[in-house]
Amino acid sequence: MTHLVIIGGSDAGISAGLRAREIDPTSRVTIIVADRFPNYSVCGIPYYFSREVPDYHNLAHRTADDITAKGIDLLLAHTAQHIDPAAKTVSAVDEAGQQRTIPYDKLVIGTGADAIKPAISGIDLEGVFLLRTMPDTLAIDAYMAARQPQSVAIIGGGYIGLEMAEALTERGLQVTLLERSATVLKTLDAELGALVQAELTRRGVAVHPRIDVTQIARDGEALRVRGADGFSRAVDMVLVSVGVTPQTDLAAAAGIELGLRGAIKVNPQMATNQPGIYAAGDCIETWHRLLNEYTYLPLGSTAHKQGRVAGENAVGGAATFAGTLGTQVVKIFDLVAARTGLRDDEAQAAGFDPLSITFAATDHKIYYPGAHELAFRITGDRASGRLLGAQIVGHKHGAVAKRIDIYAAALYHGMTVSGVSDLDLSYTPPLGSPWDAVQMAAQAWEAAARVTA
Amino acid sequence: MTHLVIIGGSDAGISAGLRAREIDPTSRVTIIVADRFPNYSVCGIPYYFSREVPDYHNLAHRTADDITAKGIDLLLAHTAQHIDPAAKTVSAVDEAGQQRTIPYDKLVIGTGADAIKPAISGIDLEGVFLLRTMPDTLAIDAYMAARQPQSVAIIGGGYIGLEMAEALTERGLQVTLLERSATVLKTLDAELGALVQAELTRRGVAVHPRIDVTQIARDGEALRVRGADGFSRAVDMVLVSVGVTPQTDLAAAAGIELGLRGAIKVNPQMATNQPGIYAAGDCIETWHRLLNEYTYLPLGSTAHKQGRVAGENAVGGAATFAGTLGTQVVKIFDLVAARTGLRDDEAQAAGFDPLSITFAATDHKIYYPGAHELAFRITGDRASGRLLGAQIVGHKHGAVAKRIDIYAAALYHGMTVSGVSDLDLSYTPPLGSPWDAVQMAAQAWEAAARVTA
Repeated sequence: MTHLVIIGGSDAGISAGLRAREIDPTSRVTIIVADRFPNYSVCGIPYYFSREVPDYHNLAHRTADDITAKGIDLLLAHTAQHIDPAAKTVSAVDEAGQQRTIPYDKLVIGTGADAIKPAISGIDLEGVFLLRTMPDTLAIDAYMAARQPQSVAIIGGGYIGLEMAEALTERGLQVTLLERSATVLKTLDAELGALVQAELTRRGVAVHPRIDVTQIARDGEALRVRGADGFSRAVDMVLVSVGVTPQTDLAAAAGIELGLRGAIKVNPQMATNQPGIYAAGDCIETWHRLLNEYTYLPLGSTAHKQGRVAGENAVGGAATFAGTLGTQVVKIFDLVAARTGLRDDEAQAAGFDPLSITFAATDHKIYYPGAHELAFRITGDRASGRLLGAQIVGHKHGAVAKRIDIYAAALYHGMTVSGVSDLDLSYTPPLGSPWDAVQMAAQAWEAAARVTA
Repeated sequence: MTHLVIIGGSDAGISAGLRAREIDPTSRVTIIVADRFPNYSVCGIPYYFSREVPDYHNLAHRTADDITAKGIDLLLAHTAQHIDPAAKTVSAVDEAGQQRTIPYDKLVIGTGADAIKPAISGIDLEGVFLLRTMPDTLAIDAYMAARQPQSVAIIGGGYIGLEMAEALTERGLQVTLLERSATVLKTLDAELGALVQAELTRRGVAVHPRIDVTQIARDGEALRVRGADGFSRAVDMVLVSVGVTPQTDLAAAAGIELGLRGAIKVNPQMATNQPGIYAAGDCIETWHRLLNEYTYLPLGSTAHKQGRVAGENAVGGAATFAGTLGTQVVKIFDLVAARTGLRDDEAQAAGFDPLSITFAATDHKIYYPGAHELAFRITGDRASGRLLGAQIVGHKHGAVAKRIDIYAAALYHGMTVSGVSDLDLSYTPPLGSPWDAVQMAAQAWEAAARVTA
């Protein structure tokens, strides 16, 4: 009987535990969870702030009872302190300071990532918050209940920053969004990022691109946020969401090899350099299927996949992680923005000879009511004709997320752009076109490639 | 300069013409169109009856002007009468009886399919209509305007029958739907067909499965529809939509080889057995990518693909039709039903050893408002683990159509069911799950296959 110990009770850790029990019902699985929120959906936090999810307990993908019902032992509110690969033990401490040593046959590290704390003076002031974990969430919630802030500055125009801008606007706060780059959502090309920015502005969010925040200071009852170039605004609360950094101190101390940005190095089976120790999720380097190299690209969907592979292999399986394509989607008010694969600049940097085009088509036949325009970016390699990446921005009822998934499936198989037209996709006038918009966009790329050849 | 003549102005013919002009702008293209409705969306007709499309002219994918602006000559209201492959001419006659002979270098036949006229006594009575073409549409429309029918019997529970049931219910008619099989939409497994039937009933459609209509007779002002087993109902109008048959008399008379159900035989380049003559769309046999054989499976999306291949090759290209997977979708009131690949019985008949499972999952995280349950059927081959088919029924805002397309892309590449979990699909709580529902359904199949292995 294998005793599998897992450090971390978020997506990767829970996925590993569930898969291990599924593949080998005789295995014993113990998951060490630093807080009391196992399997919480970090991606769901903004919807608690908007009160679309009134009770934060509902953010759990599964309850603790669901997990233990699968035959998994949960050690809640235990912090792992030390891994001893030679003795095959993990030491952990609970909230009361009680220490214990847990022996393991196999270990999965799923310690995740921490919010980056940028070098802004005043970042530790009361009313200034990082946002990553459930404890962060509860702290902000308590502050809002006590202080009833009327305005907030959000530093960082990535997914969480934009979703929180929507959520707090819905709660009635005046939101100021500060982004260092030229457009928000810089994971998209600027043309499509501009569409997202327009939606935010339309909904009353004050969007300030190209602002490098340097200082937060008390200003009477308020907090004054100052940027380079003289930017200055007084607000009642500040949220900081400028990315994450892998949490790998424990792994490093155990002699586990780290790579890019301090993330744990793993092989395609999710094994680290230490025998019997696997790692998965936001604390590891991730294989990129198109780039053919490791990247640091922490995403919940990827963490689930990697955790599942690690859990299967920890109990004797031979699963392989197929790699990421960086497929991502975000909903901002009524707009959805999604991408998969490489943008033009990324493709160029990777040694391709990319051609990228912009294209617009409606989500379904325009004669049927409720058609929405979708904006596409298609990137392909001129020499080989290979599809390299796609981006779509459009209405939340335009099936943007599942349309990007069609490109993701095409990319997975290394299809050419013209190959996308060969896919036998579904058609009915209220939901699509005889050539789906994803195929029309691919055909527009083909035509452009023919002209520029 | 190639003179390409195309017989037929619907999806296949127009696609062929447009592609020929795109690939070879020096080519001359003439399209012979039997009516005055080139490039009309037959699939859009029900939405004219519902008045969601108030003006039927909007059903054209392109106007005649759009088409001629691409450098294509349209011969409207001309019926092709004879093809002479030796002389390379087509003779056609206009409404005034004026004949003309048109020489061609290459010919594309896109004559489509006719509605099947079943052997029901009384089918030629006034008030009884087949529904396939724009002239049919206008005839029904005129009858409805003159007679103001309050009730209708629709014979045939396929796509058009169901869409017309919705449309005429929306127009205020009492609709009786008569289907010969045990459930409507027999293109789906009965379990999922039952969900569609329930939606129709909920919306006030009187659904009568297992009714074999034998007679329609005048009954005072009304029409009485009688079936075997004593079924009898009086209605004001009858629509008959029980399938189509390829229109290939012209081709047969020209010595072009026919196959299944009288459809034209073509090779993967869309060439017939007669040199220089191609065919595409609802008048031909279609290669099935999974069955590895020809079938008769007329669909608008397929006609576009085949027309494009025929048009490209007619002007010297070397395009190949990649084959159909039978991907289909239909919206019925608030429900969407879709399928791709093979059902269990079809897989069995094709020599696979299929396992099919039923599975339910919400379209997005259940904690976010507005989640809809999706019902899945997954069919895979026990021996190889290969995905063979998928069916989904769910709410119109559940991205059912584009979710079936993810399976269609997987099928195209011959993926295993478990391979679907490797796809890097997009995730955000309002639109999906870390494992998309399509992956959860695949994992449920895997678990079932493990248990039954």
